[in-house]
Amino acid sequence: MDIEQFRKAGYQAIDRICEYYYSLHNRPVISKVEPGYLKEHIPLTAPEEGEDFQVIADDFQKFIVPGLTHWQHPSFFGYFPTACTFEGMIADLYATSACNPGFNWSSSPASTELEALVMDWACQLLGLSPEFLNSSGVGGGAIQNTASDSALIAAVAARSLYQRNYPEVSLQDLVIYTTTQTHSLGVKAGLVLGLSVHVLEVKAEDQFSLRGETLQAALHEDEKLGKRPFILIATVGTTSSGAIDNLPEIQQIAKNYPSLWVHVDAAWAGVALSCPENRERCHLNTINEFADSFCTNFHKWGLVNFDASTLWVRDRKHLTDALDVTPPFLRTKHGDAGTVIDYRNWHLALGRRFRSLKLWFVLRSFGAEGFRNYIRKASPLSISLNQVFADFVTKSETLSLVTPPSLALTVFRLDPKPKSLDQPPLSLESLNNLNRLFYGRISARNDILLTQTVLNGVHCIRFAVGAARTEAPHIQQACDLLCKEADLTLEAWEQTTLDEGKPSVSSI
Amino acid sequence: MDIEQFRKAGYQAIDRICEYYYSLHNRPVISKVEPGYLKEHIPLTAPEEGEDFQVIADDFQKFIVPGLTHWQHPSFFGYFPTACTFEGMIADLYATSACNPGFNWSSSPASTELEALVMDWACQLLGLSPEFLNSSGVGGGAIQNTASDSALIAAVAARSLYQRNYPEVSLQDLVIYTTTQTHSLGVKAGLVLGLSVHVLEVKAEDQFSLRGETLQAALHEDEKLGKRPFILIATVGTTSSGAIDNLPEIQQIAKNYPSLWVHVDAAWAGVALSCPENRERCHLNTINEFADSFCTNFHKWGLVNFDASTLWVRDRKHLTDALDVTPPFLRTKHGDAGTVIDYRNWHLALGRRFRSLKLWFVLRSFGAEGFRNYIRKASPLSISLNQVFADFVTKSETLSLVTPPSLALTVFRLDPKPKSLDQPPLSLESLNNLNRLFYGRISARNDILLTQTVLNGVHCIRFAVGAARTEAPHIQQACDLLCKEADLTLEAWEQTTLDEGKPSVSSI
Repeated sequence: MDIEQFRKAGYQAIDRICEYYYSLHNRPVISKVEPGYLKEHIPLTAPEEGEDFQVIADDFQKFIVPGLTHWQHPSFFGYFPTACTFEGMIADLYATSACNPGFNWSSSPASTELEALVMDWACQLLGLSPEFLNSSGVGGGAIQNTASDSALIAAVAARSLYQRNYPEVSLQDLVIYTTTQTHSLGVKAGLVLGLSVHVLEVKAEDQFSLRGETLQAALHEDEKLGKRPFILIATVGTTSSGAIDNLPEIQQIAKNYPSLWVHVDAAWAGVALSCPENRERCHLNTINEFADSFCTNFHKWGLVNFDASTLWVRDRKHLTDALDVTPPFLRTKHGDAGTVIDYRNWHLALGRRFRSLKLWFVLRSFGAEGFRNYIRKASPLSISLNQVFADFVTKSETLSLVTPPSLALTVFRLDPKPKSLDQPPLSLESLNNLNRLFYGRISARNDILLTQTVLNGVHCIRFAVGAARTEAPHIQQACDLLCKEADLTLEAWEQTTLDEGKPSVSSI
Repeated sequence: MDIEQFRKAGYQAIDRICEYYYSLHNRPVISKVEPGYLKEHIPLTAPEEGEDFQVIADDFQKFIVPGLTHWQHPSFFGYFPTACTFEGMIADLYATSACNPGFNWSSSPASTELEALVMDWACQLLGLSPEFLNSSGVGGGAIQNTASDSALIAAVAARSLYQRNYPEVSLQDLVIYTTTQTHSLGVKAGLVLGLSVHVLEVKAEDQFSLRGETLQAALHEDEKLGKRPFILIATVGTTSSGAIDNLPEIQQIAKNYPSLWVHVDAAWAGVALSCPENRERCHLNTINEFADSFCTNFHKWGLVNFDASTLWVRDRKHLTDALDVTPPFLRTKHGDAGTVIDYRNWHLALGRRFRSLKLWFVLRSFGAEGFRNYIRKASPLSISLNQVFADFVTKSETLSLVTPPSLALTVFRLDPKPKSLDQPPLSLESLNNLNRLFYGRISARNDILLTQTVLNGVHCIRFAVGAARTEAPHIQQACDLLCKEADLTLEAWEQTTLDEGKPSVSSI
């Protein structure tokens, strides 16, 4: 493809993306394809002769687009949103057009310098301590692939530091702390590093938040066993329910364990710190006082196209001490002089893409005020989209909240109110079965996407807002649809229980 | 930015990328900026109000482009090339426009299915064994971020397997084998995992290739010490000199150590396997017979925009046994049924980008034949660009090869031929100093980029061809320029040595 062919194909791609976004709301959220669909359309080997690009571009529309789950659909309420803005797309296009692996300053000065600068913008936008600024020369931030990478990097830095301080300690005795509500990134860090993970229990009455006393008990217990907890992965905004660990209590305990690294994973909720009204509930002051590292994903609720996981550390030396490898072929004048950041020593790999560009484009195009307004559209204002949904659940006869709504996430279940007072409530097992049936019905639909979870044995459904194109009517549509599916689920359940002679819902 | 504003900004981006490529050969390869240049142009905080996108797009041209090292410049001969094709750009644009984190089949069926299919295309293009095909249902391949990630994943899978087979073995006793010529990814895997790395020596007379006897000696030695080598990271095409480890000899030794995982890192050279004439020298048969995992980066010499590191394993279960975490919020009907690939369990993180699209676009647009022709342009034909350069060095009065050229890489140094037979040759130290001076001169230029390395104490310079826009005249230009710089270096050296009263070059 020569330059003019690229111009033509590029214009067409832009036009087709416009068309995609004009038509997105009319598409099914969930692809209707079945496993193996694509191999019907794609040969088993690459073609021997090159093909005309128009055919390839058309095949993308014909075979790939119908197989996409449309995360940008206004009725996508599953998992967490994945950001996708036009500003981000253009930045990604410029970045790929000047492909460079940016592993050290010299390999592309602009990549490194822009990353250092916009990470400082983001740091200030979130109200993080100046200690985390790249300009501090001590702490600093870098863009990582995902929150899993960020947590893994924090764990590597923490383990490396611990091993340097306690060289006699065996790797087998090192322990990573998470809770039952920590994202899979906690257990995965343990799997990758081959280290034990101690999964701390959290309680429904604490809204699934890690309490200081639980941490203290675990530390005592592990001390007795000769175990060495070296990192706690605390969460601000868990995936299952948006739970926020009790960082002030954790700080009180952790201050007596200075060798316990505290990583705060706020992959989803962290961007909400841009709004001052969210800072107290997210324990920003405590994060600023004592977290060793902090991560949030601008690629979730933060308007920057996947991937842009921002990781800050209070002391960059802990990263470079753990990760610096400089073979002769990577030595440079500026690296040797120590006058520049060589970001390859701040992450797992060598090469890195030019991702700061999309953070720069987005933050400039929206401005800090526009960014905050975007967050506030979903939460926490009384008129925000999540509040509207939570109010609907609260008022519903058939649905109920499982935990109080957290920022832009509501966790609920089908939980029909008893029709008379003398009937016993449904057992947890029955309720869980009922909700499996309910979720089965919802997930069979193609016009809405919600995901499920289990909270201390309670089967429930998650409703996460924050996709860029979701507006009030889409929330209303979701409410109507859930109402209807709840009624149909109860009818079906009724029929089954009648058939089986079990206690029916209408009898309770 | 609304859809029509995006159309406008998108067209402009396409036009500016065209302009960039029309003018690329007239730009300096290496940016002229000094550390800290960008902070003069960028404020310390994000703007409060959103800015007009045209201003942002213009600032990209004004402040960022001048700070880029132009890896796509025809006179870029440093490191290894980083691929950047128009087909890859368009694929990246489509991928970012439908941003999804593709962590399991349901989260975006097309992403998973296309990846499984085109990895099979790539597998066959390179002549890898059908055992590595996704369609085998046993082995398979996935796209990873970088070769560092691929090697790390192989090491995690190998360690996990070893620990399951030998649960009594302490982590402290586990050892990763690399050679002195293995890319930094080997040592970095050790740093990340906190495991020992045994760096095996290789010899200049073996062209820096790992020999079977060296491996055998190390295995004996470690056995005596109670150490447990669990993975060997062998290389086909090292970064410093393109060395190819002696895989047939390694196989003979390793067959007696069935618990030693052999990962073949062919990050750069692997794509050359697409040409049958390269297969014997790269030991393809041996790879197919016994490698547990194999990695090559299509994003280097393989026409697919960074990043696209392809990793194949002979047994996918070793990956999923090591890396599978499935919390309730990630459970899906198809995942539970085991009828689909959930690629999140084949890599370190959870989310992954839709990278198979660029591999698909590139392989279709070029075709297998076009891909091979591209590789052959650089190597190994007698008229190929690297052969032309190597012939120039061979014939030069002042330069000499340090090792025989390997595929598209030539390693050479300034090594003036003695003017009379009775003069002693320059010492290694003097020659190294001379080459530092020589490289200092080359790297001070902005119109060419080469990188340096050290091979068993010998300071040398690497010349890597394969950037898409490099043609015969650029090689000629490089030869002329290196000739001139060599002469000027020798003149300067002469002057210094005369001043210092040391033996001069002209006297030898």
